Parts: sequence; structure tokens; C-alpha cells
Amino acid sequence: MSFTQQLATAWRNNNSLLCVGLDPDPAKFPVHLKDRPDAILRFCTEIADATADLACAFKPQIAYFAARRAEDQLEALIAHIHEKHPGVPVILDAKRGDIGSTAEQYAIEAFERYRADAVTVNPYMGRDSVEPWLAYKDKGVILLCRTSNPGGSDLQFLRVGADDTPIYEHVARLVATEWNTTGQCALVVGATFPGEIARVREIVGELPLLVPGIGAQGGDIEATVTAGKTAAGNGLMINSSRAILYAGKGEDYAAAARKVALETRDAINRWR
Amino acid sequence: MSFTQQLATAWRNNNSLLCVGLDPDPAKFPVHLKDRPDAILRFCTEIADATADLACAFKPQIAYFAARRAEDQLEALIAHIHEKHPGVPVILDAKRGDIGSTAEQYAIEAFERYRADAVTVNPYMGRDSVEPWLAYKDKGVILLCRTSNPGGSDLQFLRVGADDTPIYEHVARLVATEWNTTGQCALVVGATFPGEIARVREIVGELPLLVPGIGAQGGDIEATVTAGKTAAGNGLMINSSRAILYAGKGEDYAAAARKVALETRDAINRWR
Repeated sequence: MSFTQQLATAWRNNNSLLCVGLDPDPAKFPVHLKDRPDAILRFCTEIADATADLACAFKPQIAYFAARRAEDQLEALIAHIHEKHPGVPVILDAKRGDIGSTAEQYAIEAFERYRADAVTVNPYMGRDSVEPWLAYKDKGVILLCRTSNPGGSDLQFLRVGADDTPIYEHVARLVATEWNTTGQCALVVGATFPGEIARVREIVGELPLLVPGIGAQGGDIEATVTAGKTAAGNGLMINSSRAILYAGKGEDYAAAARKVALETRDAINRWR
Repeated sequence: MSFTQQLATAWRNNNSLLCVGLDPDPAKFPVHLKDRPDAILRFCTEIADATADLACAFKPQIAYFAARRAEDQLEALIAHIHEKHPGVPVILDAKRGDIGSTAEQYAIEAFERYRADAVTVNPYMGRDSVEPWLAYKDKGVILLCRTSNPGGSDLQFLRVGADDTPIYEHVARLVATEWNTTGQCALVVGATFPGEIARVREIVGELPLLVPGIGAQGGDIEATVTAGKTAAGNGLMINSSRAILYAGKGEDYAAAARKVALETRDAINRWR
């Protein structure tokens, strides 16, 4: 089954547009986990097990693993999710971007080594830097369009062309009309700018949008869902990481995470 | 010593603007190495030992290691270069780019785990995505500006502002005048577009430029050096990877690599 199909199935079966971001920071872990050599894996699998029926996707952020030589734990985490929760696709958040021959190597890393179902990719180097990812026909390729951080405006909001289109809109159009020939693409559009989510939705039709920035980053759920949903009330992977992962500080952290995930999923569903 | 000082010292001591790119692809290794579990490390250290007195920098590309679960060999390679060739700085070619809290993790990966002296970074997410790298005051931060691949034009050549500036020029100006407050920045400008190297040099003054694209990618040495050198005949890290690494196919591959590195260094020096 392709990523696009997996995602549509998870939207329906779990009645959820919530993507659970797995950004494991051991400094924030409950005390009872801190000294375990497999703390990162243990923490993330417990969060995944507690939230899998509430999520449309999991999104591990590779930097948190790489900073701590925990690539083996990332492999084990994704294998665990595939085995125990096959209905929930895994997006490797890596924001890679390089020339074709190097992108081929990154695609081996993401899709063959880690067995991710989709990956985030930076569009700055253009189409031939994206093609090696698209060669994996069942996988999702989620391109950065409008990011949720303050500096996102430095380049993405520059105006190009005769009609003064902001670059993020140009990227949205490029991906929707030229790069997405195989139906594998999606876009990252931050929740901190709901007006821009609406603009991207107008441009890209039904293309899925991965939306970071609710929760710790301050984005508004009502505005995000209203601006970004498709006619069928789908089309979104609304990511929350820290607000879910660190909802509890004690041994019951997984239950606390489930509670916040449930509330977030339901808060999202109120506006679909 | 800062990366900028290390680089200036290597330019002088090795009389070289040549950056040796370490993109180890086991499929292209000499037969006698292929079945060794440490083939990647062995291959790269022999290349480094054979070319260190001819190079101003080494640039391992992390994707080639990550695709093969060889992070430990990348760590060992960089440690080897630091120990045996302390005069030649190591650039980790990773092209990372993410929001501040994640960029902090990537910076730990590059600078604390791998102990790289500099790293390549993607500017698409803007200034706050670059700041965590700049917090490491002795390290170099080399931002993508104009890349050497055909698709580089898709975004980098779009025209912005009242004077129709191409985005890559806008990035060059942004880095030189706003982001480089601590003197740690450099730029990636591909050798396939010498006219654009000249334009970037005009904009950024003495800022170092990392120039991929000669050798296998077809860039012209005379045009590159003439367009990119500073008044002092420095300012460039001209990268060659495949043409050096795979110059020989037998047990003497390191000697063959040295021969090509020497020719390339001297061909560059002819135009300084």
C-alpha cells in the first residue's frame, strides 16, 4: 500500500488528523528511564503504543537520535511501529536535500535502512534533487513549503515573478503541478500562518499537508483545520510533539501523553 | 583555532585551494577492500593520508555513511584526520536545515559527535534555523547559495525584489551582511556557473566559497578560479570527489588519487 493510501486509511480508521511527533530529548525524560541505555527507544515505543489508535501518522525527528548515536534505536522504533501498529505510517523527519547522486544515498538511508513510509525533503536544490526520492513509488515525499519558525519568512516570503507571488506559493504550485506526477508528494506548511495554509490549499487541491506548529509553537487548532481541510474534511497531518511527549513527568507519562493526544485529536475533529 | 583560521593556514601551508570530497561508494571500491567490514573507513583514510599535504580541506558527505550504517566509521575517519593531519580542517557535508530546537540537535551531531570543523547548511528555513550552528564560535557554517545541479535553477534563479535579484544573490547578500556577524560563514556556489561565482564574489567580499562541480560534474577550473578568487588569490575551497577517489581501480588507488589531486591542485594554482 502506498503512503498516500496508508494515510487515507489512518485518517478514516482512527478518525484522526493528528500526527504524533517523536522528538526524544533525554533531558526531559521521566527519572525512571534516564539511566537506561535504551531510554530513547523505550520512551518512544511507550508513547507510540499509547497513542497509535489516535494518530494518522508518527513522525520521528532524526536529529534527536543522531545527536546521541541512537540510530539503532531509531531503526528499532520504526520496526516496532510497523509490527505493532501497521495502520499508522511513519514519516522520517530529516529535511534532506542534495544533488541526485547524494540524494540516492539519503533515500537508501530513509527508505531501505529505516524503512520509513515517507520523508521530509528541502526543495531549495530543485527537481533533480527530489527525483531519487520519487523513484521509491510507494513512499511519500513531503516538501518544505512554508515553515513554522520566525525565520521562515527570510526566504519563503520573498516575492517572485510578475504577480509578486511569495516563494512558498511558488513552491506549492511547482510541487502540485510539476513535481507530483506520481501522486507521492505532500507539503509542510506551518500552523503559525493559517491564512497561508488556506492559500496553499487553494493552490494544491487535495494534496496532503503536514502542519507543524500547534502546541508548543503556539498555532491555533480551529484556524489551522478550517484553513487547511479538504472538502471531505481530511488532507491534514497536524503535528504535535512536545505537548504530547512531555505531558507527564512521572512513570505514568505514556498515559498523560495519551490524554493530551486524545484531547488534541478531538479538538481537531471539532472543526473538520 | 577557528575554522576560518584553519582554512587560511591550510591555503598557505599546502599552497592549495583543493577540497577533497570523501563520498565513499563501496560499489566503486577496489576489489581487495570490498569484503572488509571497515572498508569505508579504510578507503577514506588511505585517500586522506595520500592527499592531506595537497588539500585545504576534507569534505566527507554523511549520506554515504548513513546509507550503510557506517556512522562509527565516519567518527573514526574524522578522528583520524584530526590526529594525523591537524592542519587540514574537516567539513561535514550534511546540508541540514531545521527549526532552532532541532538545529541544536543537528549541531550536536556535527560538532560534538563527529567533531567536524565546519558543516554545510540549507538556508531555506531562515536565520533562526542557522543560529544554533553559529553558537559554536570556532566552527564554520557554509550555507547553500547556488548549487551545481541542473535543478538548482528551479528556486535559486527566481527573481525577487524591485531590481529582479536572483534568489541566490539575495542569499549571498543576506549571509554576508546580516548572518555573518561572527565571521563564521561561508557559501556553496557551484562551479557549473562561473559568471555567478563572479557575481557572488562581488557581493560577499572575502567570504570563503565552497565550490563543488569540477571534475565529474564538468565545471571548468580556469573559469572557476578566475571568477572566484580574492585579491590575495585565496577565498576558495574547490571540491573534487569522484575524480580523485576513483582515479584508480586497483590496490594502488591511493597513489592514483594522489596523482589526480596533485594535478588538480596545480591546475587550480595556475590561475590564482
